Amino acid sequence: MCQLLGMNANTPTDVMFSFTGLATRADEHKDGFGVAFFEGLGLRLFVDSASARQSPVAELIKRWPIRSENVIAHIRKATQGRVALENTHPFMRELWGRYWAFAHNGDLKGFAPRLHAAFRPVGQTDSEQAFCWLMQELAKAHADVPSVAELTHTLQELLPQLAAHGTFNMLLTDGRALWAHASTKLWSVERAHPFGAATLADEDLTVDFAALTTPNDRVALIATEPLTADEAWLPFAPGELRVFEGGRWVAGGQACSE
Amino acid sequence: MCQLLGMNANTPTDVMFSFTGLATRADEHKDGFGVAFFEGLGLRLFVDSASARQSPVAELIKRWPIRSENVIAHIRKATQGRVALENTHPFMRELWGRYWAFAHNGDLKGFAPRLHAAFRPVGQTDSEQAFCWLMQELAKAHADVPSVAELTHTLQELLPQLAAHGTFNMLLTDGRALWAHASTKLWSVERAHPFGAATLADEDLTVDFAALTTPNDRVALIATEPLTADEAWLPFAPGELRVFEGGRWVAGGQACSE
Repeated sequence: MCQLLGMNANTPTDVMFSFTGLATRADEHKDGFGVAFFEGLGLRLFVDSASARQSPVAELIKRWPIRSENVIAHIRKATQGRVALENTHPFMRELWGRYWAFAHNGDLKGFAPRLHAAFRPVGQTDSEQAFCWLMQELAKAHADVPSVAELTHTLQELLPQLAAHGTFNMLLTDGRALWAHASTKLWSVERAHPFGAATLADEDLTVDFAALTTPNDRVALIATEPLTADEAWLPFAPGELRVFEGGRWVAGGQACSE
Repeated sequence: MCQLLGMNANTPTDVMFSFTGLATRADEHKDGFGVAFFEGLGLRLFVDSASARQSPVAELIKRWPIRSENVIAHIRKATQGRVALENTHPFMRELWGRYWAFAHNGDLKGFAPRLHAAFRPVGQTDSEQAFCWLMQELAKAHADVPSVAELTHTLQELLPQLAAHGTFNMLLTDGRALWAHASTKLWSVERAHPFGAATLADEDLTVDFAALTTPNDRVALIATEPLTADEAWLPFAPGELRVFEGGRWVAGGQACSE
């Protein structure tokens, strides 16, 4: 199973600690990895078809504090599409003058959407087809960039149509908000004042966030499995969509943090 | 003036030597840089709004041999659009299920094209507007991915319309071929068997390509100024379009290598 990681924060925040935790799990996931970092409207997209255990790009991401408000990372175990750069998540497109990044964990069996508009897959994965279909349907539903609430409403109609084809755990962001949909496995956690320490579940590494943050900082993390051993990760229900904005879970779930 | 670098080769080739030469010129160009590397259909796009002299991403590119058949690099001196990631070249879009990368050196004064289709700028530069317009017009001219010769024909109609607005030196690639258009300043050189040594014009660094290549390798380089002091760089004429495929200049110029 691929590994997903998402981060949404109210202030530019690095993911060195969490990405280190994710890359530790890369042993069985040798088929490439990628990370999309939004910086305002701009997007940095690092992709590599080598393992996150060996790639110089992964080393750079673990050591260089790239600060972002919205991050999506993916470690790939190929199910559809050969091991190649064009099949490596996250995928990126432009819609309404904004970049979009998308990563998927799962398998959409026999999924062959009618892609008749401006978004076509470059590689051979079911995931990129799903992303192109989402972009196409969002473009049809809204003539110009809608609010986060309007997008959430449209996604609540579209995502079950994709999930009907198989396993569809996914992360999507336009740099403003992060949408996370689970069909089988996804967890999220929020960090806010007063910050404590956290220890990676798979590696003997602890960070004291109190020393690195201000009282106003808020960060939400979304991952295939809880990345830390000592924080209150909340599992998604099957079919659940959570929306994160400003470092908090804002809508779309069965429970909301406020 | 921004600095452009393009590379087209018949076998995956790294640009560590040439990028080092380009980054040496980054003293006056502190407003960001980017490099697009095609690997088959896939695209790695590194962008940074920091100077190529200081960026950890630039260090990675100078030291890690990323092998590609088509590369576009750009070092920015901001003329339009603030210093930000979304204004950093190369820009990337998808058309006909292929990625496209584009970088521009120059200034298109008062350029405000009618962008009524699927390609809209994310940042504020004239360059990204020009790229979106090019993608829009190419999409109108061809329903599906055309041959390199057909694309060249269409570009020969479209590029003068952009160049009419000001200075338009540009590099464009879809991973198959590389199109280079000069309005004021661009040079190209071809390297083929028997390979010799070359010395960077701005830095005391020599590479013996004979030791790094096979007799079948062919590489073409395109740059704002000749990067090496001891090779036969050929200047572009104003308004000239050159097309490079398989490491050679194939069409569109006043002279052709064969």
